[in-house]
Amino acid sequence: MSATLSRQDELKKQAAWKAVEYVKSGMVVGLGTGSTAYFAVERIGQLLKDGELKDIIGVPTSVRTYEHAKSVNIPLATLDEQPSIDVAIDGADEVDPNLDVVKGRGGALLREKMVEKASKLFVCIVDDSKLVDGLGGSKLAMPIEIVQFCHQYTIRRIAALPQVAGCTHKLRMEGDKPYVTDNGNYIIDLYFETPMADSKAASEAILALEGVVDHGLFLDMVGVCIIAGKEGVEVRTRK
Amino acid sequence: MSATLSRQDELKKQAAWKAVEYVKSGMVVGLGTGSTAYFAVERIGQLLKDGELKDIIGVPTSVRTYEHAKSVNIPLATLDEQPSIDVAIDGADEVDPNLDVVKGRGGALLREKMVEKASKLFVCIVDDSKLVDGLGGSKLAMPIEIVQFCHQYTIRRIAALPQVAGCTHKLRMEGDKPYVTDNGNYIIDLYFETPMADSKAASEAILALEGVVDHGLFLDMVGVCIIAGKEGVEVRTRK
Repeated sequence: MSATLSRQDELKKQAAWKAVEYVKSGMVVGLGTGSTAYFAVERIGQLLKDGELKDIIGVPTSVRTYEHAKSVNIPLATLDEQPSIDVAIDGADEVDPNLDVVKGRGGALLREKMVEKASKLFVCIVDDSKLVDGLGGSKLAMPIEIVQFCHQYTIRRIAALPQVAGCTHKLRMEGDKPYVTDNGNYIIDLYFETPMADSKAASEAILALEGVVDHGLFLDMVGVCIIAGKEGVEVRTRK
Repeated sequence: MSATLSRQDELKKQAAWKAVEYVKSGMVVGLGTGSTAYFAVERIGQLLKDGELKDIIGVPTSVRTYEHAKSVNIPLATLDEQPSIDVAIDGADEVDPNLDVVKGRGGALLREKMVEKASKLFVCIVDDSKLVDGLGGSKLAMPIEIVQFCHQYTIRRIAALPQVAGCTHKLRMEGDKPYVTDNGNYIIDLYFETPMADSKAASEAILALEGVVDHGLFLDMVGVCIIAGKEGVEVRTRK
């Protein structure tokens, strides 16, 4: 990171630092992936170095975060070793008024969901550009991880679900080949013209299809959302 | 297959031949995997050769079935090419009184479920040794396909579900390494002392876990079950 942060990076950093206030010595901490979570990992490393935090174990949600956390000397473990996490801190691609979020544009949605579901508290950190009236409202990708076998068939079934009516879809590519997740699967991205009417119904209908592994709708998971904007940092708590 | 069939193979063949009566010229047919489905593939190949069936397209559920069906000259397609199947014929590991079944001891459960869900009619063929009072009742494996990432964590979560209380579990091995499915995943086998009290609740609870891809409970799917026993062939239809 350069010494001078852009305005948006400054907001991300403010949200991340606020989130790290939820981390206490002795905790197991889920470490998110992406440009906002980056600042939280950096901050936890600094507090450990300064002796203000002790006995932290981090559980990273991606190889990239694993490398970063290791470089700032956060002791690390996997979910296999630490199945119960105290606090997870991660960004999101969209946040709706209920604090339900879309995640996984980076392609790590399954690992992120596993770590964050294992957490007693999931603190979501965003700048205010991520706020939407309803999920899908940003018109950016809502990712679904699907098995490679007969993926065209699975894509057709997803697109035909009434719960996602009106969306368009695209198999995520990397150059001229389909993008492959860490789990060996493909990603199909859905794009909505208007927000989903019922994200819970969409979530259930998508998960019920056999070729689907998981999707980027993270519902009923965020406990606290920290939103950085021009006016400062706002903390919203799930009702 | 040897010229002289064992008594059990004779029963399997009777069930398979009866099932093939549901196949009419012009149909797209899902072709199952395993020792009972073997006889159905053989029979369809023979009827095509004799000219008694025409214009059949087979959709195989495994590489093994693909090879077998090709060897008996059944024209083949994938679900991507033929997303709507008229009849699927496949065996099962357990059949309960509602015609709900356990499948996938062979490890191909996801592909089998995708093909059979795509079928207007799923004809299940078994010998009477597969009948149970409730699913899990055979004390043999009920398989669950899970992603490799943090599989011990996922296994622990499955084992802790109240809906499968009392089961034991084992990661399926191949020599000294975990068995890997065609989709690059692991299989965890559950073993029950007494049948599951509520297989629908178990199905939903297992599928709701993030690391789970699918499982061997095939509920509300079998339309007709053909059961071969000492007394002959019995045809049961879903109520």
